[in-house]
Amino acid sequence: MTASPFDHPFLSGLLGDGEIASYFSAEADIRAMLSFEAALARAEAGHGLIPAEAARRITEICAAFSPDLASLRSATARDGVVIPELIKQLRTAVGEEAAKSLHLGATSQDVIDTSLMVRLKAVVFLFAGRLSAILKGLDALDGQFGQNGLMGHTRMQAAIPITVTDRLEAWRTPLATYRDRLTEQSFPVQFGGAAGTLDKLGSQAAAVRTSLAQELGLTDATQWQSGRLPIADIAGLFASISGSLGKIGQDIALLAQAGGEIEIAGGGTSSAMAHKQNPISAEVLISLARFNATVLSGIHQSLVHEQERSGAAWTLEWLLLPQMTMATAASLRLAADLMGNINRLGTA
Amino acid sequence: MTASPFDHPFLSGLLGDGEIASYFSAEADIRAMLSFEAALARAEAGHGLIPAEAARRITEICAAFSPDLASLRSATARDGVVIPELIKQLRTAVGEEAAKSLHLGATSQDVIDTSLMVRLKAVVFLFAGRLSAILKGLDALDGQFGQNGLMGHTRMQAAIPITVTDRLEAWRTPLATYRDRLTEQSFPVQFGGAAGTLDKLGSQAAAVRTSLAQELGLTDATQWQSGRLPIADIAGLFASISGSLGKIGQDIALLAQAGGEIEIAGGGTSSAMAHKQNPISAEVLISLARFNATVLSGIHQSLVHEQERSGAAWTLEWLLLPQMTMATAASLRLAADLMGNINRLGTA
Amino acid sequence: MTASPFDHPFLSGLLGDGEIASYFSAEADIRAMLSFEAALARAEAGHGLIPAEAARRITEICAAFSPDLASLRSATARDGVVIPELIKQLRTAVGEEAAKSLHLGATSQDVIDTSLMVRLKAVVFLFAGRLSAILKGLDALDGQFGQNGLMGHTRMQAAIPITVTDRLEAWRTPLATYRDRLTEQSFPVQFGGAAGTLDKLGSQAAAVRTSLAQELGLTDATQWQSGRLPIADIAGLFASISGSLGKIGQDIALLAQAGGEIEIAGGGTSSAMAHKQNPISAEVLISLARFNATVLSGIHQSLVHEQERSGAAWTLEWLLLPQMTMATAASLRLAADLMGNINRLGTA
Amino acid sequence: MTASPFDHPFLSGLLGDGEIASYFSAEADIRAMLSFEAALARAEAGHGLIPAEAARRITEICAAFSPDLASLRSATARDGVVIPELIKQLRTAVGEEAAKSLHLGATSQDVIDTSLMVRLKAVVFLFAGRLSAILKGLDALDGQFGQNGLMGHTRMQAAIPITVTDRLEAWRTPLATYRDRLTEQSFPVQFGGAAGTLDKLGSQAAAVRTSLAQELGLTDATQWQSGRLPIADIAGLFASISGSLGKIGQDIALLAQAGGEIEIAGGGTSSAMAHKQNPISAEVLISLARFNATVLSGIHQSLVHEQERSGAAWTLEWLLLPQMTMATAASLRLAADLMGNINRLGTA
Repeated sequence: MTASPFDHPFLSGLLGDGEIASYFSAEADIRAMLSFEAALARAEAGHGLIPAEAARRITEICAAFSPDLASLRSATARDGVVIPELIKQLRTAVGEEAAKSLHLGATSQDVIDTSLMVRLKAVVFLFAGRLSAILKGLDALDGQFGQNGLMGHTRMQAAIPITVTDRLEAWRTPLATYRDRLTEQSFPVQFGGAAGTLDKLGSQAAAVRTSLAQELGLTDATQWQSGRLPIADIAGLFASISGSLGKIGQDIALLAQAGGEIEIAGGGTSSAMAHKQNPISAEVLISLARFNATVLSGIHQSLVHEQERSGAAWTLEWLLLPQMTMATAASLRLAADLMGNINRLGTA
Repeated sequence: MTASPFDHPFLSGLLGDGEIASYFSAEADIRAMLSFEAALARAEAGHGLIPAEAARRITEICAAFSPDLASLRSATARDGVVIPELIKQLRTAVGEEAAKSLHLGATSQDVIDTSLMVRLKAVVFLFAGRLSAILKGLDALDGQFGQNGLMGHTRMQAAIPITVTDRLEAWRTPLATYRDRLTEQSFPVQFGGAAGTLDKLGSQAAAVRTSLAQELGLTDATQWQSGRLPIADIAGLFASISGSLGKIGQDIALLAQAGGEIEIAGGGTSSAMAHKQNPISAEVLISLARFNATVLSGIHQSLVHEQERSGAAWTLEWLLLPQMTMATAASLRLAADLMGNINRLGTA
Repeated sequence: MTASPFDHPFLSGLLGDGEIASYFSAEADIRAMLSFEAALARAEAGHGLIPAEAARRITEICAAFSPDLASLRSATARDGVVIPELIKQLRTAVGEEAAKSLHLGATSQDVIDTSLMVRLKAVVFLFAGRLSAILKGLDALDGQFGQNGLMGHTRMQAAIPITVTDRLEAWRTPLATYRDRLTEQSFPVQFGGAAGTLDKLGSQAAAVRTSLAQELGLTDATQWQSGRLPIADIAGLFASISGSLGKIGQDIALLAQAGGEIEIAGGGTSSAMAHKQNPISAEVLISLARFNATVLSGIHQSLVHEQERSGAAWTLEWLLLPQMTMATAASLRLAADLMGNINRLGTA
Repeated sequence: MTASPFDHPFLSGLLGDGEIASYFSAEADIRAMLSFEAALARAEAGHGLIPAEAARRITEICAAFSPDLASLRSATARDGVVIPELIKQLRTAVGEEAAKSLHLGATSQDVIDTSLMVRLKAVVFLFAGRLSAILKGLDALDGQFGQNGLMGHTRMQAAIPITVTDRLEAWRTPLATYRDRLTEQSFPVQFGGAAGTLDKLGSQAAAVRTSLAQELGLTDATQWQSGRLPIADIAGLFASISGSLGKIGQDIALLAQAGGEIEIAGGGTSSAMAHKQNPISAEVLISLARFNATVLSGIHQSLVHEQERSGAAWTLEWLLLPQMTMATAASLRLAADLMGNINRLGTA
């Protein structure tokens, strides 16, 4: 066992997901944070709060800026967030004149939460596509094996015969719901300033926020600095997805144990027993489901977010949500693979 | 400390909720289960599956039936569910002729899950009303004290001055969302028979289910015996509600500690220190939030629901969801009280 | 589903435990709290802090006192704890003279936490006995069927043949450890006064506490008002016990599903399928294991117990620990039953 | 937010721990796994099961072997564990003759669990040292400020005056217990073979296991392949440690909010408010406590470990325990720093 299972030299083969991991790298985070600063500058210039020239300069620099990571690291240790140091470096880069217009009226949480939403939006789009692929896989299995018989089991006992279609329908129903929810999920911009009141923007505050949301392709919404429902909603959806995929994994592992009613390609080998074909993906779907179920609890603990902004509750989210996203990604990846590896389901 | 905090000779004064508890008594459960059997009989008679006379007889008996609780208890110990014994008693009560038409094509889970949904629907209606009352309480506070100043706090430090309106708005936003969600929440009938296929109802199966749902005022839906998303959705909503109320409790406890910016009536007394006025309700809102956040995890564990019906995963729900409902109820009750007990907020 | 599964007209047949529930009734709690007050009076009289006559009077009254429950309930709603009102009623009962000597230097938490420890000590003694019975059951199975063959399974696949003894040994090892731990578990008195400093007892404080612990048969220890490790330790032990029993339940449910290698008497019946014999106890062991695993998380959340005493963290314990105890009790009861119901294990 | 908070280009400054991370790198894991194979070969040679020459060859190769990571990664994706591929590579490296003697009688879980224990033993030794440092820090604070007054708080309200010594004593007590427990913690070797029976080693099985444990400096114990109490015990201890440190963090954050009774150096800066000194370390101690409390639940879920070895339950541990270790490490590091940064506590 080693730390960082989702991003690990060899465990990531099993538990990682290269495509989604790229959205949760430090580099992707920095890129999205720089996009926030550039978009904010343009929005503020559009409403006459900063010079257009400053916004142009900030946009240009943000497009290519590479911060000094060692300084970001030591400053994060001191400040608890990366933003003060990132802004400091960025101020130097844009030059004295534009520096005054940079990050105007914003606070760390605005940048970090919005960066998260920008990236989650992209990730959720990919998740919806993966769910579609899994649903297509289920349809294909149904077309091929739907009429086959399967022994229905209740309370871990053989009950009455059902068809493969019946079982597949039970798998499909929640997944179709999730696909719809992912598609409809909104991703709100976070913009509140020091204490959520956008105190430095005066009467233009709401208009700037609307423009900022448009620039970034996010939903306009009043600040949610201390009202973390958007985080809990997404976490709940992710845990539901991996939970339902875990049910599929559990069913397949039980089918594989009984034998007879399933044939799966690509089972795992054993260092002790050459004859074995282990249903690895099915098992790991269970692990990932239980992981997300576990971790969701912490996300809900962080709803108890004191006052205008809580360092404690917010940092707790950092420790949990990215990993839930990665676990969901791995779960979707493995489920899609597994659908493709089922060579037979039920008995004719 | 004693078991059953929500339903306890003295702790229930603090943690219980008489109104909502009445929906989660054994009696209420039995009433709702009998309603299911009566509604099923009428639905099946309406589609010609059983004689109309049998449906009338079943409906009549179900309206007034009082089962032998001692037998229910010992049978539940043996069967893991109350239904086989309840149906046995009911068969005797309706007489030999109608007995053949009772519970036709249904299974334990149909009755128990549907009973839950019937009662949750009523409870959620009341919750929406309570949220409205809390929102009115917030509006009243806003009207009275909104212009008052409040020191904004971020990361547990004084940040910049805000107004009471700003703080109240942060409290109000998620609650308004919850009220909408509670209103829009659907409560699906559960009807699947032995293995979810309604195998005994033939081509009439879906039509009977639709009629059953109508009889009971529930949403028609394909069976969710092993796809427990409806449970996870409601649990997630309840945990979100108590989480956001916990944030309010935390804020008020911190205000009460600092003094100066809040006056609350009705604080608790201490056995050791006569001078104290403890912000009991605010603290308990935090406890209930953390309770639901904890327990939500188990509901998501039970999404890994094997095969057609899992005794293990299902029983786990029984241990968790009713209590989450009670915790949410207590949380809403305490929050409404607390809003009414705030005599002053902020400083003029 | 209904609230209070452990203490419910019919669900308690499955999930309850009469013997242990008696230690977690309101009445048992009140009895233990009154014992605390009597023991405290005697300890304080022994060290000359109150008159011997007062201690006699308090002891006499506490032995038979029946508080007015309705007042306790409404006062708990106001005070967050039952003690101020209980002491008030008790003061009236002991009379003006002794009243001055009652509850001297103590606070609510002293009484409530110590009452819990007194009862947990008794419960843990019973748990150790139940574990011994389960271990005897395992030994008996080993004697009868140990030489039988069993197909070893790894990763949900048949692996290599093992013996029944091998499987039983895996079940037995952690249970033997738990029995030892239960036997060695210490139950500390809680006595700290208003802020944990026993400020009213002066130089006699530690001596009084030692005497109090002796009177109650508890371990003497400095106050743990805000250091809740004793609670976390017991909760962790309980969750471990039910977790290991859940593993046994899971194994038996899988054996029962495969058939052939196990025969169990007393399986549950089904309302839809007369032929079934459901492994109810095995399934419920899994449910209870997952319940305790879930709830343990909340106990650890309550380690973040602010300042001298936290209402929020403490109330959270009330919502969790008694139920963990009940779940562990049910788990031990079901496991003992299940051992007795196994008619055959493995194949000759 | 980005994945892998403990091992991240900039977040690791706040949440990581270089010293402990080095024990949970892929490289450290591989080194420990190779040590297992070498120690096993020597133990088996010592008992005449393999040629001494083979053991020498295996030891020599294992000391310097660098596996092909890309192959390990793709094989882990297929097999669910790294061992079959690692052994395959190692077999090639040691040559045909010694290859027959490599990994004799062992299974993947033996290697991976034992590697974990070897590294946890080293980590726990360091943790004990860190706790000692924190305890020394508390002693120093006591020496300097112990006589100072502090307002005791109960239920988030000023209660009665206490001394700084009183508060420090509440912080110190559980930490001293943890130091003792860490010192006494045993780290069992895991050695069971394919199904826990060491079937390939015959009558030498136990003797080989004892020698293996000695070689590796671990405690000899019967296999715990499916009895995961050693994991739950360590996880519970880690969560308790971070929980008690979280209580200290919460207390300090509350002191810092109130001001007056504490002076801390090195507070964090804000991107929006230049005047702020945020108590970052104190807040993050709370986050880490709640993280471990959350995640502990999943470790206990994995006690429901089916049959001889469960892929699902075991993989769940991988997702949780290393991170709990890292969170505990960061928690100890931050607490030690914080003790050193307190410039004043209480008022003279």
